[in-house]
Amino acid sequence: MDMYLSEPRDLYRGRAAAIIKPANAAEVANVLALCHAQGVAVVPQGGNTGLVGGQTPDESERQIVLSLQMLDRVREVDPDSNAMTLEAGVTLARAQDIAESVDRYFPLSLASEGSCSIGGNLATNAGGVHVLAYGAARDLVLGLEVALADGRLLSTLGKLRKDNTGYNLTQLFVGSEGTLGVITAATLKLFPRPRSRAVAFLGLDDPAQALALLNFVKEHAGPGLQAFEILPRLGLELVLRHIPGARDPLGAIHPWYALVEIAGFSDGEAERVASATLAQALDAGKARDATLAHSLNQAAALWRLRESMSEAQKREGGSIKHDISVPIDRIPEFIDEAGRRLAARFPQARPVPFGHMGDGNLHYNVSQPVGADKTAFLAQWDEMNAIVHGLVAEFDGSISAEHGIGRLKRDLLARVKNPVALDVMRALKQALDPKGVLNPGKLL
Amino acid sequence: MDMYLSEPRDLYRGRAAAIIKPANAAEVANVLALCHAQGVAVVPQGGNTGLVGGQTPDESERQIVLSLQMLDRVREVDPDSNAMTLEAGVTLARAQDIAESVDRYFPLSLASEGSCSIGGNLATNAGGVHVLAYGAARDLVLGLEVALADGRLLSTLGKLRKDNTGYNLTQLFVGSEGTLGVITAATLKLFPRPRSRAVAFLGLDDPAQALALLNFVKEHAGPGLQAFEILPRLGLELVLRHIPGARDPLGAIHPWYALVEIAGFSDGEAERVASATLAQALDAGKARDATLAHSLNQAAALWRLRESMSEAQKREGGSIKHDISVPIDRIPEFIDEAGRRLAARFPQARPVPFGHMGDGNLHYNVSQPVGADKTAFLAQWDEMNAIVHGLVAEFDGSISAEHGIGRLKRDLLARVKNPVALDVMRALKQALDPKGVLNPGKLL
Ligand SMILES: Cc1cc2nc3c(=O)[nH]c(=O)nc-3n(C[C@H](O)[C@H](O)[C@H](O)COP(=O)(O)OP(=O)(O)OC[C@H]3O[C@@H](n4cnc5c(N)ncnc54)[C@H](O)[C@@H]3O)c2cc1C
Ligand SMILES: Cc1cc2nc3c(=O)[nH]c(=O)nc-3n(C[C@H](O)[C@H](O)[C@H](O)COP(=O)(O)OP(=O)(O)OC[C@H]3O[C@@H](n4cnc5c(N)ncnc54)[C@H](O)[C@@H]3O)c2cc1C
Repeated sequence: MDMYLSEPRDLYRGRAAAIIKPANAAEVANVLALCHAQGVAVVPQGGNTGLVGGQTPDESERQIVLSLQMLDRVREVDPDSNAMTLEAGVTLARAQDIAESVDRYFPLSLASEGSCSIGGNLATNAGGVHVLAYGAARDLVLGLEVALADGRLLSTLGKLRKDNTGYNLTQLFVGSEGTLGVITAATLKLFPRPRSRAVAFLGLDDPAQALALLNFVKEHAGPGLQAFEILPRLGLELVLRHIPGARDPLGAIHPWYALVEIAGFSDGEAERVASATLAQALDAGKARDATLAHSLNQAAALWRLRESMSEAQKREGGSIKHDISVPIDRIPEFIDEAGRRLAARFPQARPVPFGHMGDGNLHYNVSQPVGADKTAFLAQWDEMNAIVHGLVAEFDGSISAEHGIGRLKRDLLARVKNPVALDVMRALKQALDPKGVLNPGKLL
Repeated sequence: MDMYLSEPRDLYRGRAAAIIKPANAAEVANVLALCHAQGVAVVPQGGNTGLVGGQTPDESERQIVLSLQMLDRVREVDPDSNAMTLEAGVTLARAQDIAESVDRYFPLSLASEGSCSIGGNLATNAGGVHVLAYGAARDLVLGLEVALADGRLLSTLGKLRKDNTGYNLTQLFVGSEGTLGVITAATLKLFPRPRSRAVAFLGLDDPAQALALLNFVKEHAGPGLQAFEILPRLGLELVLRHIPGARDPLGAIHPWYALVEIAGFSDGEAERVASATLAQALDAGKARDATLAHSLNQAAALWRLRESMSEAQKREGGSIKHDISVPIDRIPEFIDEAGRRLAARFPQARPVPFGHMGDGNLHYNVSQPVGADKTAFLAQWDEMNAIVHGLVAEFDGSISAEHGIGRLKRDLLARVKNPVALDVMRALKQALDPKGVLNPGKLL
C-alpha cells in the first residue's frame, strides 16, 4: 500500500483502511454510495503527484484511498469538433499523445505529466507553462462526469462549445481537490497544432523591463505568444553550476532573463514573428540582449535552463518555497519589496524568484545562505512564509497560484481568505457533501 | 415604470411593487438585506435586453425590480495587467470603448451592445460573434463582486490570472441569471488589439463543406481565426430582398455561405494569412468560391449580410426561433435531419438555419411559407419547437446555447435537463438563496 500513502515532497504520510481501485465510473459510484451509507471518508487519488498533500489519507487508518488509475479508457476523440473524452485516470502525457495522434494539440504541460492524471489535473486546476496562451486546466474542459458524495453520477460531458442551460456545474468541481465529487471522466478541448515554434532567451535589466517586454511581445505576437518565463541571474548561475551540460546562452551577464516562446500556424511564421518582434524590442529598449534558437535542440536547451531551476535549487541546499501570484503589473514592485523584507530578517538568505511572469505567478523560492546548515535554514520555513504571504496579501495576491490548498495550506487559507468567500465555500460543501465523506480535512 | 416592465420581444409584461435604482454596491446590499428580511422577491435588471424574460417581474405587483443602471463607475483600467474593473451597469459598448482608450481590446460583441450591461452579460453568459476566438462572457471574467441573497457582499474581484485557493465562486454566478446573487462589479480581461483584420465571404456546397472549411481555416490561421458564421442561400436572398443596399458579393449562386474573419497582430498579416489560406482552401476543394474584402467598407458590407439576417427574416413575415447548439461535427447531419422532420410536418415552412458554426451554435429559425398568414404560422410555435428540441436532445445538444432560460424555457428545461444536474442546481440555489428571494420563477 505504501506508494499510495506518501507523496512527492514526503511532507505527509498517511495510513488507510483500504486502497480501492474501481475499474469504471459505475464502480466508483458504488464505492461512494457504500462509503456514504457507512460514513467512511474517501480520499480520491490520481497520479499521486500533488504537492499539497491533498491525495494522502490521514493517520487514523479509517479513511480509504480511492485510486482512479484503472479508469484509463479513451471514450471518444473527435478532431472535427476539437474535443476528446477521457477517463480520469488517463495520464496527462497520454492525453497529449492522443491529441497528437489526430493532428491536434492539448496544451496542458507539467513536469509531472508522465504520471499525473487528467482527473487530478482538473481536481487541482493545474497550470504549467502554457497558461498564458491557453489557460489552466479549468479553461481546457468542456464537461465532466462526476460521482457525487452519495454515489449518484452527474454528467456534464459533451462536446458543446456553448450551453446556457443553467448553472455551470463543471467549473464548480474543477479545482475542488476531491472535496465535492470524484471526477470519473472529462471532455477536453483540442486545439490546432502549431506548425512552428520559436524560443528566445533575453537578457534584462530588471523585472520592470520584463513587464514592458511582456506587453510589447503580447502586442506584436498576439495570441501566438505561448510562454513568458523569467529568472534572475542567481537562478541561471545555480543551473550552470549544478546541471550538467547547461551553458549560458548570452555573451554578457544580465541581472534578469526572460524565456519567450512564440508559435506559428504556417511554416516559418513563428521564427519570422519572433525575430521581427525581438529586433523591435531591442530597438525600443525592452531588453538588453536576445538569442533565438535556430534548431529544436537549441530550443530544448533554452527550455532546460528554465525547467532545471527546481532541481538546481535542490542541489544548492535547502530552499523555502512559495507558489504565489500577484497582479502582473505589480510583479516588479513585489520582487523588490519581498527581497527587502527578507533581507532585513534573513540577511544571508538568497531569494530566487522565477516562473510564469506572463500569469503573474512566481515560484518565490529562497535558497539557503552559502554554506549554511540545511536543517537550521528550513526551520525558518514558517517565519519566512509569514513574511512572503503577508506581502502577498498586501498586494491582493494569492498564496496558492497553482498547486492548491490540500492539507499544506488549509489553516493558512482559513486565515487569509475573505470570510464571506469562505462561508460560501462551506455552504457549497454542505450542499454537495453534507456528511463530509469526501476528502475531509483538505482545503476547508 | 413601463420601460422596466416589458422586454425586447414583448413576450412578457410584468408589474412591480417598485423599481429600485441603487447608486453603488453597498446600496444594492442594503436593498437585498431588507428584501431578505421581509421576504420580498427581487428581479435584477441591467440593460433589459435579455431575450428570455429573465429581467421582467411577474404580474403579482409584489416583486421589485432592482435596476443596476446607476452602478456605472469605472473602478480601474490596467493595460499592464490586461484587466479592467467595471461596475455592473456599464454598457457593453462603453466597456469596449474603455478598452480601446488604453489600446486594448475587449472582444465581447453583441447587436445589443449599446444598451446591454456588463452585469447582464455575465448573468446571462452572453455569446456573440467572437466566442470562437475568445470564449463567451464566462471566459472573459477574472473576478466578481456579488451581493448575496441576504445582503452580504462577496468579492472575488482582482486581476490575478491564477488563484487556486478554493472553489471557483466567480463561475458559479456567471450564467446564473440573477438567481444566486446580484453582480455589482466585475474584473474583465483585456486583450492585445489586432492590427489588421481580414473578412472573407465564401460560397459552399453544403454544411459538410462548411465543417471541412472550418477545420482547414483553424489549422492554417490558428488563433487568428476570429469568427466563422454560416448562412444558407435562402438567408442571403431574404437579406438581398429586404435590406436596402445589400448586394450579393459572389458572382454565382451557392447553396451555402460562410463568413470568415481573421485577425493579425502585425501590419498586413491578416490579409496575408487570409488570402493564402483561402487560396489553399479553394485548391483543396474546401469551398467553391471566395471573396476577400479589400477595405473596411467592404468588410462592413460583408458583416452586414450576416448581421441583417434577423431583420430580414422579420420583414419576410413570421419566424419561429430556436437558439440551439450541437457538437460541431454533427452540424451538417443536424441541419439535414431537422429539415427533413420539419418538411414532413410543415411542408411549406422555410428553415433558415444560420449563425455561429464555429461554436456549433445555430439560430435555427423557420420562416413562414410564402404568402401564409403570420398569426396562423406562429400558432405552430410549440409544435415546431418540440420537433427541433427533440432532435437537439437526440444530438446531445443544448436548447439554449446563448440566451439562457429565464421564464421562456424554464418548463422546457425541467423536462430536458439531466435530473441529477437539476437536483444539484436546486441544491446550490437552496444553499445560496434558501428563502428564494432572488429572481424566483426564473431558470429553476
Ligand atoms: C515534478 C512535479 C512538477 C509539477 N509541476 C506542476 C506545475 O507546473 N503546475 C501545477 O499546477 N502543478 C504541478 N505539479 C503538481 C501536480 O502534478 C498537479 O497538481 C497534478 O494536477 C496532480 O495530478 P495527480 O493526478 O497526480 O493528482 P493527485 O496528486 O493524485 O491528487 C491531487 C488532488 O486532486 C484530488 N484528485 C485526484 N484525482 C481526482 C479525481 N479523479 N476526482 C476528484 N479529485 C481527485 C486528490 O484528492 C488531491 O486532492 C507538479 C508536481 C510534480 C511532482
Ligand atoms: C438585438 C439583440 C441582439 C442580441 N444578441 C445577442 C447575442 O448575440 N448573444 C447573446 O448571448 N445575447 C444576445 N442578446 C441578448 C441580450 O442582449 C444578452 O442576454 C445580454 O447579456 C443581456 O444583458 P442586459 O444587461 O440587457 O440584461 P437584462 O436583460 O437586464 O437581464 C438579463 C438577465 O440577467 C439578470 N441580470 C441582469 N443584470 C444582473 C446583475 N447585475 N446581477 C445579476 N443578474 C443580473 C436578469 O435578472 C435577467 O435574468 C441580444 C439581445 C438583443 C435585443
